[in-house]
Amino acid sequence: MANKTVVTAEPGKQELFITREFDAPRELVYRAHVDPEQYVQWVGPKDLEMSVQKLDARDGGTFEFTHGRDGQNYRFFGTYHEVAENERIIGTFEFDGLPERGHVIMGKTTFEELPNNRCRLTHQSVFFSVADRDGMVQSGMERGVREGYEKLDDLLAGESGASASA
Amino acid sequence: MANKTVVTAEPGKQELFITREFDAPRELVYRAHVDPEQYVQWVGPKDLEMSVQKLDARDGGTFEFTHGRDGQNYRFFGTYHEVAENERIIGTFEFDGLPERGHVIMGKTTFEELPNNRCRLTHQSVFFSVADRDGMVQSGMERGVREGYEKLDDLLAGESGASASA
Repeated sequence: MANKTVVTAEPGKQELFITREFDAPRELVYRAHVDPEQYVQWVGPKDLEMSVQKLDARDGGTFEFTHGRDGQNYRFFGTYHEVAENERIIGTFEFDGLPERGHVIMGKTTFEELPNNRCRLTHQSVFFSVADRDGMVQSGMERGVREGYEKLDDLLAGESGASASA
Repeated sequence: MANKTVVTAEPGKQELFITREFDAPRELVYRAHVDPEQYVQWVGPKDLEMSVQKLDARDGGTFEFTHGRDGQNYRFFGTYHEVAENERIIGTFEFDGLPERGHVIMGKTTFEELPNNRCRLTHQSVFFSVADRDGMVQSGMERGVREGYEKLDDLLAGESGASASA
């Protein structure tokens, strides 16, 4: 049975949560978040072309990536506040396709070991306003997240196979 | 009459607001936030010794400063997501004296021009939880902020004087 992506956004709150389990060890799920060559292969919806300009995943580093569709580019960028190997990533995130700047999000992604070489990912985003949070939810972000994790499933299946046969 | 520091923390919310007016142009109030030589002179309560290890106030930069008292050092650090000259600073902030890491705050400081060469500063902090927000309020942060702005008043009075006589 496929692992489900669950997005929780309680009405009136300026935060949202995402949980997702993976049939892969947490070291591999973590690595897919900090290795630019892996990150580019899975983040975002399936119908967008992803390119990574920068992914300097360390305390005080920054990142920038672009989603392209029909000649249009959507740029995302931010800072890494804390990158704790295999455990947690905390940082800021902004989409530059909004009418104005300043609608920045702070995110915390936590990687948790489960029995049988499985892993649970928990993500929390906090926003400067409930309107920012609601706008994010209404942007179709849930589909992008779900499809991204499905691509990550495929990438991890290849990785696990590679490790097992090595 | 002295300008008042107003801290607003609505019960049950994961955010707080600070507003403060200054009898100085916003360019000077902004500069005191990004120039390490000025920053070290005013941030924090009056009974702590402030030292700045790093204040790289630009998009993607980082900062680190220390408050010392009775041989004990309290370290604060974070990232700059956006530094918009004279207008706005957005970034992350963490105090490393807590029992564990991860209680990161995202802050937005906005500088607004007022008539008669005055300025209004508005700061918003958002937290990963209401408990984090309440802990910050109960830490005596309000006194530190108020006393810091009083030191900034003095610094700006010197600055304005220097400009006027230059």
